[in-house]
Amino acid sequence: MDSSEFRKRGKDMVDYIADYLEQIESRQVFPDVEPGYLRPLIPDAAPEEGETFQAIMQDVERVIMPGVTHWHNPYFFAYFPTANSFPAMLADMLSGAVGCIGFSWAASPACTELETVMLDWLGKMIGLPEHFLAGSKGEGGGVIQAHSSVERAGLISGVKMKKIPSDENYAAQGQALKTALEEDKANGLIPVFLCATLGTTASCAFDNLMELGPMCNAENIWLHIDAAYAGSAFICPEFRYLMKGVEPSADQVPSSDSLSPEWPDEDLICVLMWKQVKKRSDLIGAFKMDPVYLQYDQQESGLITDYRHWQIPLGRRFRSLKLWFVFRMYGIKGLQEHIRKHVSLAHEFMDYVKQDNRFEICAPVILGLVCFRLKGSNELNKALLHKINNTHCRTGCGTFKCIESKKQRNEKLSTFAWAFAILKGV
Amino acid sequence: MDSSEFRKRGKDMVDYIADYLEQIESRQVFPDVEPGYLRPLIPDAAPEEGETFQAIMQDVERVIMPGVTHWHNPYFFAYFPTANSFPAMLADMLSGAVGCIGFSWAASPACTELETVMLDWLGKMIGLPEHFLAGSKGEGGGVIQAHSSVERAGLISGVKMKKIPSDENYAAQGQALKTALEEDKANGLIPVFLCATLGTTASCAFDNLMELGPMCNAENIWLHIDAAYAGSAFICPEFRYLMKGVEPSADQVPSSDSLSPEWPDEDLICVLMWKQVKKRSDLIGAFKMDPVYLQYDQQESGLITDYRHWQIPLGRRFRSLKLWFVFRMYGIKGLQEHIRKHVSLAHEFMDYVKQDNRFEICAPVILGLVCFRLKGSNELNKALLHKINNTHCRTGCGTFKCIESKKQRNEKLSTFAWAFAILKGV
Repeated sequence: MDSSEFRKRGKDMVDYIADYLEQIESRQVFPDVEPGYLRPLIPDAAPEEGETFQAIMQDVERVIMPGVTHWHNPYFFAYFPTANSFPAMLADMLSGAVGCIGFSWAASPACTELETVMLDWLGKMIGLPEHFLAGSKGEGGGVIQAHSSVERAGLISGVKMKKIPSDENYAAQGQALKTALEEDKANGLIPVFLCATLGTTASCAFDNLMELGPMCNAENIWLHIDAAYAGSAFICPEFRYLMKGVEPSADQVPSSDSLSPEWPDEDLICVLMWKQVKKRSDLIGAFKMDPVYLQYDQQESGLITDYRHWQIPLGRRFRSLKLWFVFRMYGIKGLQEHIRKHVSLAHEFMDYVKQDNRFEICAPVILGLVCFRLKGSNELNKALLHKINNTHCRTGCGTFKCIESKKQRNEKLSTFAWAFAILKGV
Repeated sequence: MDSSEFRKRGKDMVDYIADYLEQIESRQVFPDVEPGYLRPLIPDAAPEEGETFQAIMQDVERVIMPGVTHWHNPYFFAYFPTANSFPAMLADMLSGAVGCIGFSWAASPACTELETVMLDWLGKMIGLPEHFLAGSKGEGGGVIQAHSSVERAGLISGVKMKKIPSDENYAAQGQALKTALEEDKANGLIPVFLCATLGTTASCAFDNLMELGPMCNAENIWLHIDAAYAGSAFICPEFRYLMKGVEPSADQVPSSDSLSPEWPDEDLICVLMWKQVKKRSDLIGAFKMDPVYLQYDQQESGLITDYRHWQIPLGRRFRSLKLWFVFRMYGIKGLQEHIRKHVSLAHEFMDYVKQDNRFEICAPVILGLVCFRLKGSNELNKALLHKINNTHCRTGCGTFKCIESKKQRNEKLSTFAWAFAILKGV
């Protein structure tokens, strides 16, 4: 394939993508396929001779699409939607074409510098304190990080992890941390790290930073704040009260997938993290490996950022282009409107649930997540959850009967992660 | 931006990409910019109102391109080229549009199953023993992994890392491992893991698997074989002698960026790994975390693969589409031709170096890497290296005077990572 064929095929692909997304509602959300469906549909080895692009695209429809869970289908209610957007896709095409591996400043200065500035833009958009930003002096700063599990990280690093019990609203309070710290120290353990969460996955709970932060500072514990879900809401000033306590106490805020799964324009692979100025050298020092084949003249000048020292892998794509395209094409106002609309839809849905006296709301509705349950036993709720998942998954139709028509349901519910029917007390 | 605007802008972007790659030779390889160049070129915060796509694309040329190190410029001789390709870019566009997060089978069956089958295709292409493949019975299998540093992994996991001294050809032999094991055990340490390399970064050396493998087996040491550079060469049967010893001894082969940095069609972010059947459960067990919000009915059926248990992060893109497009559009023959051409170019370049009696070849030339040095002191060679890097980087012109014209140099040298002027003994 030469560049003239790429021009043609690339434009065909753009049309295929636009068609796919325009008509995605007509595709079944969760595929009917059984495990192992794909292997018999294609040869058991790569072809000797090259094939045509047309042959491959025919197989996309025959082989791939029947096995795709369509995350962007408006009837997809599992997890949080990944929320791609057209500007992000365009930026990703460009990132692929540039094809740089931005592990050091020299490996692609634009890749490094755009990332630093985009993280500053976002930091300002969500109202982070000044000392978390890189600014023109290069003292603070953020990074796009791979998403990973805190528990898994603990497991790999050999650090013993302990869960802090939460209160009736699923949030961690100071007293629970105090008890845990006392127990650990009585057992000869040394507490070193606390991961607090703003907007937990299951219930969108907010840990009490005003209590947890000072305790961490007093005990010299690294406080990391995971705002993967709630982070993007802080683009709207009216939600920033939810991160109260970030400024005086945290070493690091937030590990925020900040144009977040429920909201538009990035994918789960893009998680952002800011590190506080005074701790930056500690963190980079912990990861620093500098084999001779990666060294270059300016690296110790103090003027540059080599993001390879901020992360575990070496390679990194030019992902900040996606942030840049998205921030600019929507503007802050566009992103705020989007978030406000979704929060308001969640409250509207909550009202529907409250009008049906078979159900109850079982966690505070703060942003875009509504946790509800049947009044009755956990077993009954488990049965409902099973039925919802299976009915929904198999047919692509909604199952929540109190919402009248398919059309309306689509309009009202597309943004609610309503399958999170949290079973209170389980 | 709606889908009709995306159709237009997407096609504009395809043309921009094709133009960029057609004319890449005219761009300066390494940019002239100084650290911090980008920040003054753009606003210090995201815009309130959305902007037009045209405005952003103008800024791509004004802001981004002047700071890009053009990895695909034929005059780029640093590291290994990332070697993108048109089919891979098309597949990546599709992956972005599908936008699934394939952490479990249910999250996108096609994403999981295509990856399993593509790793089998590649395993067959490079002649891996049968028991490394998943086959239709699902016993073995491979995975696309993020590239990471072995040393950094050791640092994080708290395992003490030790380098095994290499011989005069930069390869590790059994005697060196034997000495290291004896020393460690005498010091009360327990050896658990050996990372052997096929095609080291600096000199393309091949560790002696025939000696190292049986020793690891005898000591119950996990042997991981990193074939990130050499792995793709095994598509050509004539190079498979280089992985002799893989079959009887390794627990795991290879961590292969198998359409590798020097060769086409994947990027450094795509590293592949096979795990041997009998060890698969150990490895998955080590990483397994199963929060309630990720569980689904079929996950314990034994029929499915949940790749989230094979890796540290949760999220993963549909990257196997890139492998599928590339394998099919080039065919095995096309990929073999490409590799053979590059190996032959390396040998031709080696002959040029040998004809110039100021230089000597300082490591065996086996695949596409030629290590050469000035006859003389290490200091002299360091000065040459510095001059090469700076002259080359600043001007985009080659500096190796024994190759006549720019045109010829372009033709002959574009694939040689010739700046790796390894300083013997340093």
